[in-house]
Amino acid sequence: MTRYQHLARLLAQRINQGLYVCGERLPSVRALSREHGVSISTVQQAYYLLEEQQLITPQPRSGYFVTPHQSAHPMPALTRPPQHPVDVTQWEAVLEQINMRQQPGIMQFGDCTPDLTQPTLKSLWKIISRIGQQQDIRLLRYEHFYGAPELREQVARLAIDSGCHLTPEEIVATNGCHEALSIAIRAVCQAGDIVAVESPGYHGILQILHGLNVKVIEIPTDSQTGISLEALELALDQWPVKAVIVVPNCNNPLGFIMPERRKRALLALAQRFDIAIIEDDVYGELAWEYPRPPAIKAFDSDGRVLLCSSFSKTLGPGLRVGWVVPGRYLDRVLHMKYIVTGFTVQQTQFAVAEFIRQGCYPAHLRKMRQLYQRNLEAFTAAVLQHFPCGICVTRPQGGYLLWIELPEVVDTAKLNKRMHESGIQIAVGSLLSASGKYQNCLRLNYGQPFNASTEEALKKLGEAIQQAMEEDLVELEK
Amino acid sequence: MTRYQHLARLLAQRINQGLYVCGERLPSVRALSREHGVSISTVQQAYYLLEEQQLITPQPRSGYFVTPHQSAHPMPALTRPPQHPVDVTQWEAVLEQINMRQQPGIMQFGDCTPDLTQPTLKSLWKIISRIGQQQDIRLLRYEHFYGAPELREQVARLAIDSGCHLTPEEIVATNGCHEALSIAIRAVCQAGDIVAVESPGYHGILQILHGLNVKVIEIPTDSQTGISLEALELALDQWPVKAVIVVPNCNNPLGFIMPERRKRALLALAQRFDIAIIEDDVYGELAWEYPRPPAIKAFDSDGRVLLCSSFSKTLGPGLRVGWVVPGRYLDRVLHMKYIVTGFTVQQTQFAVAEFIRQGCYPAHLRKMRQLYQRNLEAFTAAVLQHFPCGICVTRPQGGYLLWIELPEVVDTAKLNKRMHESGIQIAVGSLLSASGKYQNCLRLNYGQPFNASTEEALKKLGEAIQQAMEEDLVELEK
Repeated sequence: MTRYQHLARLLAQRINQGLYVCGERLPSVRALSREHGVSISTVQQAYYLLEEQQLITPQPRSGYFVTPHQSAHPMPALTRPPQHPVDVTQWEAVLEQINMRQQPGIMQFGDCTPDLTQPTLKSLWKIISRIGQQQDIRLLRYEHFYGAPELREQVARLAIDSGCHLTPEEIVATNGCHEALSIAIRAVCQAGDIVAVESPGYHGILQILHGLNVKVIEIPTDSQTGISLEALELALDQWPVKAVIVVPNCNNPLGFIMPERRKRALLALAQRFDIAIIEDDVYGELAWEYPRPPAIKAFDSDGRVLLCSSFSKTLGPGLRVGWVVPGRYLDRVLHMKYIVTGFTVQQTQFAVAEFIRQGCYPAHLRKMRQLYQRNLEAFTAAVLQHFPCGICVTRPQGGYLLWIELPEVVDTAKLNKRMHESGIQIAVGSLLSASGKYQNCLRLNYGQPFNASTEEALKKLGEAIQQAMEEDLVELEK
Repeated sequence: MTRYQHLARLLAQRINQGLYVCGERLPSVRALSREHGVSISTVQQAYYLLEEQQLITPQPRSGYFVTPHQSAHPMPALTRPPQHPVDVTQWEAVLEQINMRQQPGIMQFGDCTPDLTQPTLKSLWKIISRIGQQQDIRLLRYEHFYGAPELREQVARLAIDSGCHLTPEEIVATNGCHEALSIAIRAVCQAGDIVAVESPGYHGILQILHGLNVKVIEIPTDSQTGISLEALELALDQWPVKAVIVVPNCNNPLGFIMPERRKRALLALAQRFDIAIIEDDVYGELAWEYPRPPAIKAFDSDGRVLLCSSFSKTLGPGLRVGWVVPGRYLDRVLHMKYIVTGFTVQQTQFAVAEFIRQGCYPAHLRKMRQLYQRNLEAFTAAVLQHFPCGICVTRPQGGYLLWIELPEVVDTAKLNKRMHESGIQIAVGSLLSASGKYQNCLRLNYGQPFNASTEEALKKLGEAIQQAMEEDLVELEK
């Protein structure tokens, strides 16, 4: 670390600690130069760096001031993952995260479970119970390998909203979106192949790639517009990439919706390099905008997009009702479906199909979108209030996941372990990178009802972050 | 084909056609020699061959007689698959078979669905319905990654009957036995590896191996005692085999139960060559003998057996409630579980666990065992009555699958297509072999209630087999 970087970090820590409060004037360049025994230019460079980080703001002829909290808070910049294929690892850390979730009484900021308590789900419970009463023998039988016809019909109907005109025959039901992704990936690549992903990206996808010994190239991704097409093009030029996997609508974890022209441009790029696109649309129905944004699949003229989705984020993951629309890869996807699980559970397919058929789904979605949008405001405000200055927070355009960049000195894996003792769990940023980047980042689920205990947990989290920063400062000042 | 083989086949056809009836004296050697213009020794060789096939019986100083139908009917001999690793193919044929199943009104002799109509299942329906009424939010949530604790507890209790003393923590719930096998196989081998299997063997296992690009060596298997340990040892000596996959209890398709000493010997062999055993016990609860036969897992002292099972054959496949007990491979199996489907559907796990907890399971099993044993008698009698002479039929020791070897001239894939027009489906023998053997074999599901329409269907099947043989005879006599 150079002198000016060291000084900048020291000043950042003081700001974050509240030694210099928001809006306060910072010491003059000359005063700092004397205090720390460094040159004027070193101090100036340190100030430039902090300005770049939006921590301080220069005012002409008055000096530097601590940047006040803004409603338009700083957002994460375009990410910069390593630009070469890597092997994913970190399975142990993912398993640890999953196991933590299984402990009762934990404040779950770390997982991706939606709010399951809303009254718009009541009809679903009724339907589930009635299906049992009817003693429909199809529940127990091997039935349609592709999935229940009534479910595939309803999925085809819903797909119209995302711009996709599908027949039920193009849809294969799966055990959640996870199986859909697993078989879609298997359908287009093999061990040793290279796949491009958003960075940060959903750890489930990364672990599937890991399990298949597929290498991953992480592509820089913008928190408002999505995967960098320029960086992707460079990667496609340089490496024999087989497919690109994206979550273009209400991205996990960044919350963006790719603008339509970028979706079309991504498809054109895939066509030019003749690669497949695996599109995870699992949060697509939860966009604030109405009508919902189109899937890339909507523009797919040559069947190269494998659209994966489920009702896990809208109705409940325990149902395990997902699907894949594999386009030209249908035969291969069917084979992979067969070798992975053979058949999909029947009852929940029937229940979800009936819930949609009865017209309960749009009202439920409307309710959930409103709820999550309200939650987002409350969560963001609480995070900005309780977390130290100098953090970047995403502005999701749908879904219920918030991505937060903390100062680089904070290791969120350590933070997670510390918080676990207080009954709070976060999603550790480094799990969402094949190369283990984003160690200073975390993902929060704001889908749960926002109440006093949520706020208290966020406050505790903020304090722990503050403490981690102070410990680093003590180290620095030694 | 040599002269004597040609003559033997001609005579066999005549017997099967009823030109020579059961118990009738066959022409003398001299007469046949004149009739066909062949040497005396050629006729003698032909008769020896037919005697070997148990089609004719010599009586001292009286000549040869057509073997009468016996209650102890001829059983398939030890199989003779090619003794080198092969790539599995035949996915298209398996898919065709699955698709046929999805057509309504088919007489399903081809699939593996149990009888789902028995009153002992009534409590299961009640439980399924009540779980919906209770609005237990765990149904919708991501819950325990390993599976519902209540289910794993009940599975551990049941396992005692098979000689396995397990804790719930050793058990991982899966989406049916199919997923259990899929992740067990993934846990112990990779693309390019070699795995040993019984021959014939369950096509689901073969297709999983195919999908993973694992090579298969088929081991000769006896229809009463199971996989030939001698042949397996030769294969292990010669090839770098990673694992052996067996269905030792109520085998699919042969119906045998491996004697306990052979189970122990198989384990000793696996220990000596340091390979894993993947044990599919999915029909194990349906053995005629009581208490049920032990699993190989019961003798597993060093954790090399991965026990796979489910409630698909005892309660219903549509529930998708299975499990794997991976022994020393637990970590790897968890990873594979995560990358394959992530989580298992909740409701049916709860329902099955409650069904067992309430004590309904043993009575149901007792009922099903009695039913299938009765069905077996009726089916076997009908097959022996309506099918031509000269067939071999297994004598299952449990389960509900019958394996029939027809004369070699009958191609059961063609037969299946022909029967499909009459609304009858069989399981084609060649699908149960990696190398496409057993083209003259078929598997029948006798789990369905035996009634007039079942008998009518078997009669039609017998006629179609007869017809296929006659067509071959016409070809021969040209």
